[in-house]
Amino acid sequence: MARVSVPDWLRQRADLTPQRTALVVGDESWTFTELDQWVNAAASLIHDWSARPGDRIGLRAANSASFVVAVHAVARLGAVLVPINTRLTDPDVEWQEAEADRKLTLGEGDLASFDGLGQHWRSPDPDREFDLDAWHSIIYTSGTTGRPKGAILTYGNHWWSAVASALNLGLRSDDVWLACLPLYHVGGLSILLRSVICGITAVVQSRFDAAEVNRAIDSQGVSIVSVVSTMLDRMLSERGERPYPPTLRCVLLGGGPIPLQLLQRAVAIGVPVVQTYGMTETASQIVTLAPEDATRKVGSAGKPLMGSQVRIEADGEISVRGPTISPGYLQDVVPRPDGWLHTGDLGYLDEEGYLYVLDRRDDLIISGGENVYPAEVEAALLAHPLVADAGVVGVPDAEWGRCVAAIVALKPGASVSADELIAFCRQRLAGYKVPRLVQFRPSLPRNTAGKLLRRSLQIER
Amino acid sequence: MARVSVPDWLRQRADLTPQRTALVVGDESWTFTELDQWVNAAASLIHDWSARPGDRIGLRAANSASFVVAVHAVARLGAVLVPINTRLTDPDVEWQEAEADRKLTLGEGDLASFDGLGQHWRSPDPDREFDLDAWHSIIYTSGTTGRPKGAILTYGNHWWSAVASALNLGLRSDDVWLACLPLYHVGGLSILLRSVICGITAVVQSRFDAAEVNRAIDSQGVSIVSVVSTMLDRMLSERGERPYPPTLRCVLLGGGPIPLQLLQRAVAIGVPVVQTYGMTETASQIVTLAPEDATRKVGSAGKPLMGSQVRIEADGEISVRGPTISPGYLQDVVPRPDGWLHTGDLGYLDEEGYLYVLDRRDDLIISGGENVYPAEVEAALLAHPLVADAGVVGVPDAEWGRCVAAIVALKPGASVSADELIAFCRQRLAGYKVPRLVQFRPSLPRNTAGKLLRRSLQIER
Repeated sequence: MARVSVPDWLRQRADLTPQRTALVVGDESWTFTELDQWVNAAASLIHDWSARPGDRIGLRAANSASFVVAVHAVARLGAVLVPINTRLTDPDVEWQEAEADRKLTLGEGDLASFDGLGQHWRSPDPDREFDLDAWHSIIYTSGTTGRPKGAILTYGNHWWSAVASALNLGLRSDDVWLACLPLYHVGGLSILLRSVICGITAVVQSRFDAAEVNRAIDSQGVSIVSVVSTMLDRMLSERGERPYPPTLRCVLLGGGPIPLQLLQRAVAIGVPVVQTYGMTETASQIVTLAPEDATRKVGSAGKPLMGSQVRIEADGEISVRGPTISPGYLQDVVPRPDGWLHTGDLGYLDEEGYLYVLDRRDDLIISGGENVYPAEVEAALLAHPLVADAGVVGVPDAEWGRCVAAIVALKPGASVSADELIAFCRQRLAGYKVPRLVQFRPSLPRNTAGKLLRRSLQIER
Repeated sequence: MARVSVPDWLRQRADLTPQRTALVVGDESWTFTELDQWVNAAASLIHDWSARPGDRIGLRAANSASFVVAVHAVARLGAVLVPINTRLTDPDVEWQEAEADRKLTLGEGDLASFDGLGQHWRSPDPDREFDLDAWHSIIYTSGTTGRPKGAILTYGNHWWSAVASALNLGLRSDDVWLACLPLYHVGGLSILLRSVICGITAVVQSRFDAAEVNRAIDSQGVSIVSVVSTMLDRMLSERGERPYPPTLRCVLLGGGPIPLQLLQRAVAIGVPVVQTYGMTETASQIVTLAPEDATRKVGSAGKPLMGSQVRIEADGEISVRGPTISPGYLQDVVPRPDGWLHTGDLGYLDEEGYLYVLDRRDDLIISGGENVYPAEVEAALLAHPLVADAGVVGVPDAEWGRCVAAIVALKPGASVSADELIAFCRQRLAGYKVPRLVQFRPSLPRNTAGKLLRRSLQIER
């Protein structure tokens, strides 16, 4: 569609379903009309702060209703959103600020001034449209190594992502999607865009808290929740024996390789887990299990969403292609000639074409000529009842080139020896995959998206 | 999205949800895998008949499973589908054939040779993709006047239409959409495309039969059915007192102005009627009532689907804009400079922005300087319990310029005089809208889409 422009999504959504609940934060809720009017007011304010169409506007704040308002207000101004990881240090933020050439950055103080704006909203530009080829946001990847890169996501990327998700999971007018992930990550942000495109409620929590998530599922009609595996683990532990209500129709589980044991535990007690694979550069999900395959294909991330494709390169790398894929990175806006994005992840397709994600290619351990996927070894360690967390890396070894080493965090008060854990792994893994070294730490380094930072694991020799 | 290509919809759908039921015709049904394989075989056969990518291929046949296969096979070949109205005379078809420059036309005999193909399907081109800017079909408008025009519809037009419909009506994996409209019309054809894009079942009936439609709703899990008002009228009459099952969640009612009395009758007995407004040039629906507004806004066609816009020109004409709109007609492929399609229909938006369709602009009767919409007068006549059908036109009048004249078909065995009907109208309409002349005929001329052909009404003076 040579250049498609569509009405401002939130504006149209407020016109179509004005009285539906758009947003719930804590005890407060807003209809699409109320959110639309609040966004108008915030857009006027940001405009007063000299932001203009095309400007890049940072957003550095915790999850809140004002954060949601800021996201839509920046789009309404025709500016480009640059969400900033709140866990970053000031020097890191300054570096990003320079790279992204930001006009201004909205912080907690700025967002606080959005409160109460809803009462005196100003007349907006009624003709504002979204060009699907225009940049909606620049999201710095939460990579586990190196400098983060600013991935450009267009309006079209987000549109196709929201639509393809609905085509896979279905769409009900009473759907409620819980966002307990940080909204500055694509996994959280995409929930806000799906909410307005699909006309469903977003429940936003300020941070992940297993008990709060479980409470929202029980009492706020949550039908879909996006989580990473550590979150699901804590939700299930906090939950104990109480079953989830039937209103919960999908626990969308992403964020990297997922221990099979966790999946099986969830499926066994009837949690509707749907595994997904995606990344910042694909505007969130690109390969997702269909709900009807959830129990038949445990461990698989599923199939590409409508419009997208996946293939495995000769070296085992996962490549993806489709309309949700970022046109490029800041400073590096080169179109991919054949449209295939090489993800840096290793995986395979089973005989039915379902994707299984193995691990980051850069984390692969080649030991005595054999490939060892750290995620598989970590999953074996996590299967031990006393292990709370585990990370596996390769360390130099005179005989094998690299050998497998593990860092383990035990559950509070638990005690088990390295030799016991090595013996436990030997029962579950081929010999060359068994860790030669196991060391203990109180906790493991994970980034704000919950991804294990294997490069930060320090093995003592 | 500068140029978006996506995998062949049916191919991907068969990959994603292979075991879901794609198609039901009579007692037979096919999964998406079975349909995909049958389409492969048919595409091979059509290829053997010398059809090549870019060729225009006619399809002149009644509703059947083979018709559905032909639709998808033509796309798989990269050819352009030209569905032909089976009610047309041979000279009309020959004229279209020449205009559309058709390579070949698939008739009933050709489709018969598709039977049994499924057993020995050949390997397809696995890399066939759909460019959303490419032409999917050329559909001759079922206009009520003049030569039909060949409206071009791209893959993107159909894609956006299917998606926008799902965003309005919601999407359930067990949805079943009944096609009792002719598949050569956009209203029928679009059901087949929604089926593969959204992964839902299409039930195809060979022709409209009220009892068959009611039976399918009872016994085949039909959740959505597309009809025009005369069909709904017959369905309700055939149904009598029996309520519809709760599986029926939407009766999508299009095809022109709809008598309010019929809508009220349907709503009163709990039929989930959702009025819609669309045309060939908009790839079917473009303005549709939301299910939640069905009873609150009886008589309105609703609001534009996500991505589309509607406005009323100074003279009352309805204009529409959005990604489902045809790039133009054959022999007349001029892009609309501002993207607004002037529909030729008159209507208005109420204070909440809901569209009400009045009538065709060309059918407007100006009598003594006042506007009379024939549809409103027809609806008043149809409200009479003995009137089966009614058509209203303007006829020259020395005093008023034009005056209102009506042709009425009475129900079998009924008897009522012209004067009685005129008196009946006087109770319901402003004086200048009341017919001066009422004449009786056994039936009224309607086209194959059920639209009244007012130009064919013969008033005897």
